[in-house]
Amino acid sequence: MTRKILLLPGDGIGPEISLQASRLLAACQESGLDIDVEEALVGGAAYDAHLEPLPPETLQKAKAADAILLGAVGGPKWDTLEDLSKRPEKGLLGLRKHLGLFGNLRPAILYPQLVEASSLKPELVSGLDIMIVRELTGGIYFGQPRGIEIRDGERVGFNTYVYSESEIERIGRVAFEMARKRGKKLCSVDKANVLEVTMLWREVMTRLAQEYLDVELTHMYVDNAAMQLVRAPKQFDVIVTGNMFGDILSDAAAMLTGSIGMLPSASLNESGQGMYEPCHGSAPDIAGKNVANPLAMMLSVAMMLRYSLSEPALAERIEAAVGQVLDDGLRTADIASDGMQAVSTQAMGDAVLAAF
Amino acid sequence: MTRKILLLPGDGIGPEISLQASRLLAACQESGLDIDVEEALVGGAAYDAHLEPLPPETLQKAKAADAILLGAVGGPKWDTLEDLSKRPEKGLLGLRKHLGLFGNLRPAILYPQLVEASSLKPELVSGLDIMIVRELTGGIYFGQPRGIEIRDGERVGFNTYVYSESEIERIGRVAFEMARKRGKKLCSVDKANVLEVTMLWREVMTRLAQEYLDVELTHMYVDNAAMQLVRAPKQFDVIVTGNMFGDILSDAAAMLTGSIGMLPSASLNESGQGMYEPCHGSAPDIAGKNVANPLAMMLSVAMMLRYSLSEPALAERIEAAVGQVLDDGLRTADIASDGMQAVSTQAMGDAVLAAF
Ligand SMILES: CC(C)[C@H](C(=O)O)[C@@H](O)C(=O)O
Ligand SMILES: CC(C)[C@H](C(=O)O)[C@@H](O)C(=O)O
Repeated sequence: MTRKILLLPGDGIGPEISLQASRLLAACQESGLDIDVEEALVGGAAYDAHLEPLPPETLQKAKAADAILLGAVGGPKWDTLEDLSKRPEKGLLGLRKHLGLFGNLRPAILYPQLVEASSLKPELVSGLDIMIVRELTGGIYFGQPRGIEIRDGERVGFNTYVYSESEIERIGRVAFEMARKRGKKLCSVDKANVLEVTMLWREVMTRLAQEYLDVELTHMYVDNAAMQLVRAPKQFDVIVTGNMFGDILSDAAAMLTGSIGMLPSASLNESGQGMYEPCHGSAPDIAGKNVANPLAMMLSVAMMLRYSLSEPALAERIEAAVGQVLDDGLRTADIASDGMQAVSTQAMGDAVLAAF
Repeated sequence: MTRKILLLPGDGIGPEISLQASRLLAACQESGLDIDVEEALVGGAAYDAHLEPLPPETLQKAKAADAILLGAVGGPKWDTLEDLSKRPEKGLLGLRKHLGLFGNLRPAILYPQLVEASSLKPELVSGLDIMIVRELTGGIYFGQPRGIEIRDGERVGFNTYVYSESEIERIGRVAFEMARKRGKKLCSVDKANVLEVTMLWREVMTRLAQEYLDVELTHMYVDNAAMQLVRAPKQFDVIVTGNMFGDILSDAAAMLTGSIGMLPSASLNESGQGMYEPCHGSAPDIAGKNVANPLAMMLSVAMMLRYSLSEPALAERIEAAVGQVLDDGLRTADIASDGMQAVSTQAMGDAVLAAF
């Protein structure tokens, strides 16, 4: 049965890294993978063409796809759009919401070849392997009411941070299952000493722990978690948290590795359909220059093969090819270091394909 | 005219570090400083005695004081209190709110003697000197409505992230003035691509910039700010942000220096009255063991002398004394390193007093 893949290049460096991903998909097809790859517009690119960051046609194709690969969205060109609902980011948020992609898996892994690229001392990060499980379709990103209005003669902006028990439980299960498959340690991050919504979060996580007695659950306040990630990141195995804290902590954790240009992510819904994208953003400053690192995007293909297409063998081949090019000393600008070979986006893609 | 100082030791290591601060205050009195020092209960200690984290008597004394010195509040002993309004943290939040202490100044400075204590590579942090200006009496910490209630047959937790233009402008001015006195660079941190309340934040900051043409204003999304702090913290001079983002980023920034046990903070209201406290927390795990670092608390005394009592000469003497003991190689456990002399809380206090 032919599986449908939707490729959404998006904005900034999205198109050039997506090109490398699509070459990799073609190579998988040559190796016998039965897929059908389509492309569509999202984000700023879709706004420019259709005045909508998520055109109906794109959403329809996304719903029909077995898996989605997304490059990145956003850029200064659209940052001044007054209407927040037209911003590129709303394309991404709309996909997450409409497809119910509540479970966001963001690994922060340090590639042994790149230990020097980290801003932390090598002994603190070598071997780092954290999985951040971020709730992606609730919390303050989607809470109502929200807006800007006049109160007592002046403008007031407001958003609502809200979670129901069932939303918390659903993401909690994803995290407990993940911890069970890994080091059996789960740290739930909240601000339960100040925010009622996260008191409920902590309570539900604590209750769930009764069903996962093989997993050790701890709780940490978000400010402390931000500190501990900087101080001693290897204390963590799996972290579970809400949408906004997850946004902040996963980026900090990814940056710790010094290899944010290397990290893929998955966003899954209840039926296992998934969207896969690099952890890094659209990097408008280097877009179109053939210098972006395509590896996170190519590793997103591997993650997709593993989680949504049940093709672990192909996933491993991609991961091994990436390991090989790093061993061979190839480095894009973001992971450059002395004595290594500086390569372009295209040359890095070539090398991975050759090693595949 | 005798100035009134209120000392609130609080919980955990609060009392033992407060003891060193009060010895330092006595030494200042001997040097001619005309102050009257009182003590009162706050946090868990106040709850234990009066079933209230902020007893009316404490609040009254705080209102009457020219400045307040606070140790730290909170601990596992009270983390299970069902009623959030009785938690130690509410004592601290109540003081901030009732006294209108909206302007929180959190420096992240790397002491040259402690460059090895940072988890970051020395070249990335040496000379680090960031000032984080955090809004402290608004945002999601205090927004209404908030709570946990039943909706559609299940419990739902909710909080409100809200800022008015005047609240944003007020903290913005503090930050622009601060930047003007420092490196003239201000970075405002928000999540304006997702949250309406921070769109308004960005708009007000941009408008204010017209009045501070000598200050260069930039904007950064909070997830990127968390990354940039880890990647290249020296790019920042002054950062201004809301209550919750400020909580997270200031802790991460403080930890970058490796010397969080060294960092004081100030919380000021419109009339210059201030509360001064260490950036670190109550550290219940080491409480009562005479191992906590008293320097952040002693430097909080210096900050108080400078900002609320207009006694810069005494403040400088304290800061010089702290520099002296570090030069002499004295280190509490949190900043211990090879070849340095390990000392207790009390011995560190003795040494600062001797050098004062
Ligand atoms: C682009 C933005 C809306 C998005 C988010 O905040 O979720 C991004 O930062 C991410 O983490 O995927
Ligand atoms: C104790 C807690 C309520 C407090 C806060 O979140 O503001 C603390 O973390 C701080 O940063 O001063």
